[in-house]
Amino acid sequence: MKQSKMLIPTLREMPSDAQVISHALLVRAGYVRQISAGIYAYLPLANRVLEKLKTIMREEFDEIGAVELLAPTLLTADLWRESGRYDTYGADLYKLKNRDDSDFILGPTHEETMTALVRDEITSYKKLPLNVYQIATKYRDEKRPRYGLLRGREFIMKDGYSFHADYDSLDETYEAYKHAYERIFARAGLEFRGIIGDGGAMGGKDSQEFMAVTADRTDLSQWVVLSKNIESMDEIPETTLEDIQAELAAWLTAGEDTIVYAEGGDYAANIEMASSWFEKKASYTEELDLQKVETPGAKTIDEVAELLNINPNTTIKTLVYRADDELVVVLLRGNDQLNEVKLTNFLHADFLEAANPDDVEQLVGAHFGSLGPVGLKGVKIVADREVEVVKNAVVGANEDGYHYLNANIGRDFEVSEYVDLRTVSEGELSPDGRGTLKFAKGIEIGHIFKLGTRYTEAMHAIVLDQNGKAMPMIMGCYGIGVSRLLSAVLEQFARIYVEKTPKGEFKFSWSINFPKALAPYDIHLVPVNIKDEETMRLTNELEEKLHAKGYQVLVDDRNERAGVKFADSDLIGLPVRVTIGKKATEGIVEVKIRTTGEVIEINKDELVNTIEILNQ
Amino acid sequence: MKQSKMLIPTLREMPSDAQVISHALLVRAGYVRQISAGIYAYLPLANRVLEKLKTIMREEFDEIGAVELLAPTLLTADLWRESGRYDTYGADLYKLKNRDDSDFILGPTHEETMTALVRDEITSYKKLPLNVYQIATKYRDEKRPRYGLLRGREFIMKDGYSFHADYDSLDETYEAYKHAYERIFARAGLEFRGIIGDGGAMGGKDSQEFMAVTADRTDLSQWVVLSKNIESMDEIPETTLEDIQAELAAWLTAGEDTIVYAEGGDYAANIEMASSWFEKKASYTEELDLQKVETPGAKTIDEVAELLNINPNTTIKTLVYRADDELVVVLLRGNDQLNEVKLTNFLHADFLEAANPDDVEQLVGAHFGSLGPVGLKGVKIVADREVEVVKNAVVGANEDGYHYLNANIGRDFEVSEYVDLRTVSEGELSPDGRGTLKFAKGIEIGHIFKLGTRYTEAMHAIVLDQNGKAMPMIMGCYGIGVSRLLSAVLEQFARIYVEKTPKGEFKFSWSINFPKALAPYDIHLVPVNIKDEETMRLTNELEEKLHAKGYQVLVDDRNERAGVKFADSDLIGLPVRVTIGKKATEGIVEVKIRTTGEVIEINKDELVNTIEILNQ
Repeated sequence: MKQSKMLIPTLREMPSDAQVISHALLVRAGYVRQISAGIYAYLPLANRVLEKLKTIMREEFDEIGAVELLAPTLLTADLWRESGRYDTYGADLYKLKNRDDSDFILGPTHEETMTALVRDEITSYKKLPLNVYQIATKYRDEKRPRYGLLRGREFIMKDGYSFHADYDSLDETYEAYKHAYERIFARAGLEFRGIIGDGGAMGGKDSQEFMAVTADRTDLSQWVVLSKNIESMDEIPETTLEDIQAELAAWLTAGEDTIVYAEGGDYAANIEMASSWFEKKASYTEELDLQKVETPGAKTIDEVAELLNINPNTTIKTLVYRADDELVVVLLRGNDQLNEVKLTNFLHADFLEAANPDDVEQLVGAHFGSLGPVGLKGVKIVADREVEVVKNAVVGANEDGYHYLNANIGRDFEVSEYVDLRTVSEGELSPDGRGTLKFAKGIEIGHIFKLGTRYTEAMHAIVLDQNGKAMPMIMGCYGIGVSRLLSAVLEQFARIYVEKTPKGEFKFSWSINFPKALAPYDIHLVPVNIKDEETMRLTNELEEKLHAKGYQVLVDDRNERAGVKFADSDLIGLPVRVTIGKKATEGIVEVKIRTTGEVIEINKDELVNTIEILNQ
Repeated sequence: MKQSKMLIPTLREMPSDAQVISHALLVRAGYVRQISAGIYAYLPLANRVLEKLKTIMREEFDEIGAVELLAPTLLTADLWRESGRYDTYGADLYKLKNRDDSDFILGPTHEETMTALVRDEITSYKKLPLNVYQIATKYRDEKRPRYGLLRGREFIMKDGYSFHADYDSLDETYEAYKHAYERIFARAGLEFRGIIGDGGAMGGKDSQEFMAVTADRTDLSQWVVLSKNIESMDEIPETTLEDIQAELAAWLTAGEDTIVYAEGGDYAANIEMASSWFEKKASYTEELDLQKVETPGAKTIDEVAELLNINPNTTIKTLVYRADDELVVVLLRGNDQLNEVKLTNFLHADFLEAANPDDVEQLVGAHFGSLGPVGLKGVKIVADREVEVVKNAVVGANEDGYHYLNANIGRDFEVSEYVDLRTVSEGELSPDGRGTLKFAKGIEIGHIFKLGTRYTEAMHAIVLDQNGKAMPMIMGCYGIGVSRLLSAVLEQFARIYVEKTPKGEFKFSWSINFPKALAPYDIHLVPVNIKDEETMRLTNELEEKLHAKGYQVLVDDRNERAGVKFADSDLIGLPVRVTIGKKATEGIVEVKIRTTGEVIEINKDELVNTIEILNQ
């Protein structure tokens, strides 16, 4: 393809509105353009990357017997009323009316559509399992769209849905998807982790998230590619290194999720689901008498602990939440933080929020800062499992400005259930005891859930089982964020290219090193002077030869200065650049390998072989 | 692919809500399902056909240097306000608001988006021409969605847009698209015609429509495929033929457009644009005196002609239209019909409608039925070119119940312009004099326009030309109705399969004979008894062999009766069916060629070769 025919609007500078490097480079290298907030056009280069991703996905889903179809995106609200989500999904749901004044939505996900489709056609276990997927546009009216393709209002998803007559069959398909996902992300060249995820929001049970790991900003060796005349990082002057570090630090670390993983072990989970080692230790401390003390002005745990000169660890924090329509009291050790996802899932709640001050006052007769479990009636009290062993705790007295000393479970108040509700911290022991927990940032690129019967029950998607008994189908669902994968790839494959000028100055610039499987083209052919006949003859000859071998070639046939062409080539980021320059008359071209920065001069007749060897 | 894993919900009967055969068969053969009025899910088989169409299109557009991208579908209304279409597009435009209360639309077409995209990136003629396209979902809130995929509210389009610095370049790209479209439709196996189309609605100049011709319902030979034991149509009993004819007649002829073509010539046009032979003949008839006559109760031309005992041909019909904000009077010979598209284009109007009675009365002081040109002041009068030669015409007297005899142009009234405004009739001479005009029904599958500067002027998409002068870019636009192509294919490849039972009875049933290039799979392998080990061993062997040769194979591995499997196979309509039946133990299989109804038994080892020969 001739570059003059493409729309690749590269920019000289980073776009001013980008906060993460993937967003900045996607725009600067001419891959995407924003049409309105969070809504992008995929320009020709990005479209080619997306098509390559789609091909990889289709091949892998073929392997596991998943079948592609295409559901509409403009969905009648009736389907979402059946599942109950039309009213509960919230402000992210795009709603509209058609000319007949009927309610419609733009699909953010397709559980309802697929359930309805399958419900109407399948009535017997004999036609199960069924495993369908689509690659299609989705819509979510994000409050704050940002980070380019990472949080958009219109985006491309691969969403798959499986239907089963028993849980063993679901487990089997879930495992098959897990492996398919691993193959897809590995083929795409991504560094990723499969971690325990939260299936709660989708009404599910088991779930696994696939996270693209965001590269460490402090480790320059992960980012820097050296030009041919620099032998090692040691050559780079300190001031240049500092400038590079500052440049890296200027970009936010992408990844809305925190991955918790065990260093030295296998454990990995989203922080929303992560646990740590827990051992219930019996306490032989003697219970002292409950005692009310004045704690004027002390509202936070830290203030109370300081005032009373105690370890926050010996206090019990009392929180009040509204879970759907019910109030619930939650207890944690003073130095622990509540994990709201764990609480939501434990309560099987659709929605959870901190109770408002009026509700709290009505329930306990006091304000935030003096809440405590002693004397509370008619409300469910759940506690983090760490609370069970606390003796002689400091708790709020449900009277503004007062706390109790020496509150004890069983004697002074009751707890209905102990459950893991706290957010883990770095350095704790992994729940399996193998390794200590570390945190990393990650971008969610895939998510698989065992949905169960959440939708099939609500929507009466019933089949007859082997005994002729009616049962709701059992579902799994499986998503890949296709357009956001493009951002994840850029986060991992953005590079800082360092050059040494003939005068010995060190310069650096951003470039993209696209992984081979996803690069929009395999090879960038750059004739330096398109007005030179011999140059163009050789360019055409090489283009044809490479084409014949199955390579996708982009030819920079533009009448631009060499500097402009090379800068654009670095931004576009194809794995191999072949420059046809002054030595064209001798049949010599220059090959640059982008991943290593290596540059070699070779005879034109060796080009195809050289590239084949490089591709092995 | 194993059929048990597919979602192919075939039906025993035609769906009751279908009026055209393509719609009926798409549903019955399990290709699509309606989710809500005019909004469909493309099930796995249809999705495969769509993907094949996309591949053909991409290959052909690559050839002409068109570049694929992907614009969003949720579009900010601001873009459409710039072009003026936000307010004028009408009720077909889906409008919605986002959470910030900003106006959005669902794109029915993308002139604005593409113009904005290119405007922001291209400032010089040097970067032109540019030729981009996308294959994407479009939305149109049709008042009466119907005929399956032919008139839907959500549909798939290929829309291309080219940008130029001069009209020669536009002409070149337009011609290239014309040839690409011809190749695409020919490769898809369609019978189609390129005809002169109406570019008016898109603000354009030259335009060509590509119409899939709808097969003739009365010619049974186009529809019937005979089973192996029927040698010719002559064998079929009269009553069966009548039943077949009745079955054909039960389905509406699809195609919202009337194609006018010259039998014996090359001329072809949409009836909205069609002309016929015109020769201005001087008239030597003497002008008689204008005379007012009473015509009580005679309001139509026919009533007036009968009352006065004259040929309607000697009357002049007077119509009043509102074109945008202006009233205009239109004259035609009494026996001609106004072609509103011609009038709209002549007036360069965005909107045209018959004037309402109040406007008419205010203008002429009379009601419909007595309108005439004599004495009209302060209004533009345009006439069909046939009117110019009429002498001593009968016209309304602008007084209820009265007409004039012997009205003459120049003496009694003035006409500001003569122009071709009439709708042609079958049997007229072609405008180039070669052949007589015939009408046929057609389905619009593609449309190319020379748009000119309609959008680039309104949206200030300006480049500097070779002399450094600012000029609006010149545009072309090029559409293919991708999802409706599926319907067009079914209209042409639906067949009635006639069988003779062993008892000598004649039966017929609908089937699909998919053209090879678009069939969802190449070959249907049908093992009759999946519980027979030898049958399944042979089935697997053949599947692998065919697969190795690059064929796409669908294996009916369902545990169903042979009758069910064969009926489904006829509906699905793959080009070749291979049945593995009782002779599996001898290594003999049955091959059915769907286009001819031919059935042959061959040895398994000859299967691949036989199919290769058939495919030549």
